[in-house]
Amino acid sequence: MSEFTVVEVGPRDGLQNEKTPLSVDDKVSLITRLVTAGARRVEAVSFVNPKRVPQMAGAEEVMEQLPRDAGASYIGLVLNRRGLDRALAAGVDEVNVVVVSTDEFSTRNQGCTVAEGISAALDIVREARAAGVFSTVTIAASFGCPFSGEVAADHVVDIVRQVAAAGPDEIALADTIGVGVPAQVRALAAGAGRVASEIPLRWHFHNTRNTGYANALTAFDLGAAALDSSVGGYGGCPFAPAATGNIASEDLVYALERSEVSTGIDLAAMVETAEWLAGKLGQDVPALLGRAGPFPGPA
Amino acid sequence: MSEFTVVEVGPRDGLQNEKTPLSVDDKVSLITRLVTAGARRVEAVSFVNPKRVPQMAGAEEVMEQLPRDAGASYIGLVLNRRGLDRALAAGVDEVNVVVVSTDEFSTRNQGCTVAEGISAALDIVREARAAGVFSTVTIAASFGCPFSGEVAADHVVDIVRQVAAAGPDEIALADTIGVGVPAQVRALAAGAGRVASEIPLRWHFHNTRNTGYANALTAFDLGAAALDSSVGGYGGCPFAPAATGNIASEDLVYALERSEVSTGIDLAAMVETAEWLAGKLGQDVPALLGRAGPFPGPA
Repeated sequence: MSEFTVVEVGPRDGLQNEKTPLSVDDKVSLITRLVTAGARRVEAVSFVNPKRVPQMAGAEEVMEQLPRDAGASYIGLVLNRRGLDRALAAGVDEVNVVVVSTDEFSTRNQGCTVAEGISAALDIVREARAAGVFSTVTIAASFGCPFSGEVAADHVVDIVRQVAAAGPDEIALADTIGVGVPAQVRALAAGAGRVASEIPLRWHFHNTRNTGYANALTAFDLGAAALDSSVGGYGGCPFAPAATGNIASEDLVYALERSEVSTGIDLAAMVETAEWLAGKLGQDVPALLGRAGPFPGPA
Repeated sequence: MSEFTVVEVGPRDGLQNEKTPLSVDDKVSLITRLVTAGARRVEAVSFVNPKRVPQMAGAEEVMEQLPRDAGASYIGLVLNRRGLDRALAAGVDEVNVVVVSTDEFSTRNQGCTVAEGISAALDIVREARAAGVFSTVTIAASFGCPFSGEVAADHVVDIVRQVAAAGPDEIALADTIGVGVPAQVRALAAGAGRVASEIPLRWHFHNTRNTGYANALTAFDLGAAALDSSVGGYGGCPFAPAATGNIASEDLVYALERSEVSTGIDLAAMVETAEWLAGKLGQDVPALLGRAGPFPGPA
């Protein structure tokens, strides 16, 4: 069995599009359950403007109350310098800074052009390193844009090349709206390998059109350093139309474990956490494993 | 662009588990719509005992009313000699004979052991050839059994070896209950290549645990001759618990076409057919493409 790290993004991407924001207490409960289920990297909070994304309000309060002795690394999403300052003050273990691949989506998502986003990311990565904090740059809409349509792999690879100059600890390629296919994963992995072979690649997939798991397993086969997934498969982007659920942690873990890959995740505990969250959100679990049951079933 | 054939199994596997059987007229309408949408191989009917599977009653009447000048090849599923006789009399273009990989499931599905199933399949393939009809042998539960649990790839490959002796035109490996992962696809493809390299491989996947599309695209990459899918993603096996939907034709075609593979299927027409079928079945479409929309969207 090989070992592999799944990055649990449910508390951030899973919740940011839900109609009813979870309370700080419920967020802390969710993250604690995920860590108990075995999650070792958790995208716990987002330091965005709570007026724009009310679901992500209370990031500092959440960070204060999280268990810090359980071996989990907590990631804070940031879009700009103000977000970084908040993240560092709140004591995150990692920052994940987002660059969007097209001007139109970037402007809607974070009020800047792609070039401005790259410039901000370079500064943030350098500041994070100075503060001793692990940094990831996520390139959103790497597989297609809800406003501009097709996004060429070469364009994304050029952004990878530019952000790699600051030496982030990791670069993540995100299919924010769930349009990608494995052929794109292969093209992007090859391109990133050409311009930034020294930087580990993480991947972020949505299952909007049923290609998310195929993409994730392809990225795994190509040597991904990490894959994002969301407990229950909740999620979406508030600034992208019809961007539905992330790939679900339990379904991804099922596929990996049945492929002789150890994730450290307790599948039953993950399924239970998804059901608990479904109750809080008043929404059925999008993931399939909880409905279908494990295989082989209980002896 | 390469070209590839998707086998539309909605009229058979898609309907055989539904509570309300479709009328003969509705079945004919469904198949006609699928052919109009571009389907070139359609598993149209099943020559099983209508007392055991009432959803599949009226196979002869359906075959009589289908358009025969539209370039489509119609497949009839058969489980035994009686089924073959009915299929040949009804004028099918192809027969698909099922062998189940474990004794317990085989007994429940078709009242015989695996060895008896193989023996019957050998006879049926030879009879079909004598009648000038294309034959496929499908090995059900090739990725796991709802009753016996794990099914070893070597065991399935040994069944492939035995059925290959009769020289079927095609062998299909089926994940009847949706438990498989791409690593199993690779093991089975390699094994089948060792014992029956001369026989084209077709694959049949269910998306019960969100691995179906990953499996299908892996099989495609390994040179699959054909992939089964079901309009809308309906389907299941009446004799296997919790065996939910086939991979959906529209979602599979989306993934293939975005990978520069031409299927001849009109995606919009396939989505419309799924919606029409949803109305007939009184059940939401399981497929995702109709909900998410095409990409890139209309100009």
